Amino acid sequence: MKILIANLGSTSFKYRLFDMDGSSSSMIASGGFERVSEYTPCIEKMLEDLVAEGHLASGSEIDAVGFKTVLGKDLSGCVDADEKVLAALEGFKEVAPAHNPAYAEGIRCFERLLPEVRRVALFETAFYQWMTPAAFSYAIPQAWRDLGIRRYGFHGASHKFIAERTAKLFGRYDVADRVRSLYVDGPGEFSAEPFRVLSCHLGGSSSVTGIKNGLAIGTSMGFSPQSGLPQNNRVGDLDSMAVPYACKMLGIEVGEAERQLNKESGLLGLSGVSNDVRDVREAAAGGSEEAKLAIDTLVDSIRHWMGSFYFKMGGAEVISFTAGIGENDVELRSAVCAGLEDLGVHIDQAANEATIRGKEGVISTDDSAVKVVVIPANEELVIAREVYRQVSKD
Amino acid sequence: MKILIANLGSTSFKYRLFDMDGSSSSMIASGGFERVSEYTPCIEKMLEDLVAEGHLASGSEIDAVGFKTVLGKDLSGCVDADEKVLAALEGFKEVAPAHNPAYAEGIRCFERLLPEVRRVALFETAFYQWMTPAAFSYAIPQAWRDLGIRRYGFHGASHKFIAERTAKLFGRYDVADRVRSLYVDGPGEFSAEPFRVLSCHLGGSSSVTGIKNGLAIGTSMGFSPQSGLPQNNRVGDLDSMAVPYACKMLGIEVGEAERQLNKESGLLGLSGVSNDVRDVREAAAGGSEEAKLAIDTLVDSIRHWMGSFYFKMGGAEVISFTAGIGENDVELRSAVCAGLEDLGVHIDQAANEATIRGKEGVISTDDSAVKVVVIPANEELVIAREVYRQVSKD
Repeated sequence: MKILIANLGSTSFKYRLFDMDGSSSSMIASGGFERVSEYTPCIEKMLEDLVAEGHLASGSEIDAVGFKTVLGKDLSGCVDADEKVLAALEGFKEVAPAHNPAYAEGIRCFERLLPEVRRVALFETAFYQWMTPAAFSYAIPQAWRDLGIRRYGFHGASHKFIAERTAKLFGRYDVADRVRSLYVDGPGEFSAEPFRVLSCHLGGSSSVTGIKNGLAIGTSMGFSPQSGLPQNNRVGDLDSMAVPYACKMLGIEVGEAERQLNKESGLLGLSGVSNDVRDVREAAAGGSEEAKLAIDTLVDSIRHWMGSFYFKMGGAEVISFTAGIGENDVELRSAVCAGLEDLGVHIDQAANEATIRGKEGVISTDDSAVKVVVIPANEELVIAREVYRQVSKD
Repeated sequence: MKILIANLGSTSFKYRLFDMDGSSSSMIASGGFERVSEYTPCIEKMLEDLVAEGHLASGSEIDAVGFKTVLGKDLSGCVDADEKVLAALEGFKEVAPAHNPAYAEGIRCFERLLPEVRRVALFETAFYQWMTPAAFSYAIPQAWRDLGIRRYGFHGASHKFIAERTAKLFGRYDVADRVRSLYVDGPGEFSAEPFRVLSCHLGGSSSVTGIKNGLAIGTSMGFSPQSGLPQNNRVGDLDSMAVPYACKMLGIEVGEAERQLNKESGLLGLSGVSNDVRDVREAAAGGSEEAKLAIDTLVDSIRHWMGSFYFKMGGAEVISFTAGIGENDVELRSAVCAGLEDLGVHIDQAANEATIRGKEGVISTDDSAVKVVVIPANEELVIAREVYRQVSKD
């Protein structure tokens, strides 16, 4: 089965083509375009290239196109990308302005150019469908809740992959099976010994998710992608009263405040140097107090959210790191796990240092009660697998 | 030494007069006025009454007046209530509109009526002076940080009292001594075994503070009192992007959104019933799903913050409950401590049920590794003691 994953940025278009069956998957082609103002010519060029390179006889040979949609109003899960999905993206275009309009347009382009090819949307919020109302509700008036203001969660594909992979790594095949079929069969019942994971997806965009027996019990990302951990240039958690106060004191409009919190905050805002943690770390090593504060604040916030889920789950068996920072920043992983000896967390420093650049591995000591692992993620492949499961189901 | 504590609400004035020396304290008078539009006549009437009742020969017999100021710009601690304090209150009048103007006016009234009597301000933020920058910083641009937008913390007098009292209860006199002299001598060095407390102040206004060796390492209250836990009718933590979104969708101004988050949110907003947890609990028992959600969300949020500090401190020896809800809501204490057996938390249900209405006591089982206690607070007395220490120092 040939599955194409379309990654639609506001000014970019990237794709990967996978060949999949029940037991294996291989990426057979990939490519992308930058400075994109219209998707149609990109998609046409992509199809031309895939045929010219011999991967496809024609575009209609593609079995399904998968879209990693972010946030839909009143809709989540892994579902056919039909009019309901387009309406859900439209309904929250103000909340995810960089993502929703792009995906809505991209889905329409594929509909026009390849009408016979099935389109599947995997919402980033899908993994959080089973959070309790207490975990996703803000203490706001009913009229605000009716607008859909609640915690949603993001990076769902990544955290779900971690849920499955950690279970496999530590021999919990019951949990791995549950996670694999989650979007197809639902969670069902579960009564075995608990398997609890603190999943840290740390990259340009970051979140921490608590996973109990394969289900997310909560996540650091709230209503918008400008919440939770400090992000590359997005703010993360902030007292909601700070926005009107800053507007008044700085003499700026709310729209400008939103822009600053969306573009000039996070690691960039704290460090004053860069939105890339590698640059920030270099500046900190060079003596910048602001850069050091940016990293310390990121670590503090990661620990804040890990602690919340650790406590709510009544403990944890595994701590997992993934994504750009999680897979490569040895020092940050050490700092996140520091001082947790009483909780049974012991890092093997040599293993920590050796596990970088796409390597998977356990970085805790053999006698660490809580296992700490680094798991590189291939997000497009994860999405392709979910799309494959949906399409195979029918 | 005679110390008067003046409690200045926006429409009320309450007072308590204490007689204190180094070893004991007793309240010798108390009173109050409601529907107050001006403090001067209230203070004059209070002095008249105190003389008439024989507690004082004249107002100038008072050694000091203590004020529980909330939030000052660029100022905290337990300090003389002079022009610097008035400027600090003025500087953050928008952030604490219900509190700062009232205290500024009250301090000026006492200055005018009793110029010879020393005035001492104990900021609610004082206990949080030793938090690390990583713990109090938001990931916002420098211009926003320059406005003083950061986490401050509130209920400092209450949490500090818990820090001292828990240490005494469990024989950690070294920690108790450190806490007692904190505002006079500073924290100094500390190298003994850790003593870690999760302090839950749960009332009309609520917060959770993590206390390590007598010092607050962080607190649930952020920049404004509309943050952290869901409050009686104030919102608690909320994605900062929800405010502009709600304004746009509901067609309201930012000021109106602030009012709704300050008056129509929290337990009231979620339950639709009341801002008093007792009414909310009654409605939940009567079948209201919204009321049940309000209580569940409060419990979830308490556990969220407790977990954060538990993890950051690498464990805890004590969980403490105080204030109206914390001292009386048996069911809520059970729910907060549920499912924590792996962390060594075991509630003695009989002790839990018996420890209400101002009783102090341990409510965990004898073999519970983490001790759970209920500690009633007498906030005015706590403030009087701090004022006494400041005045005695000189």
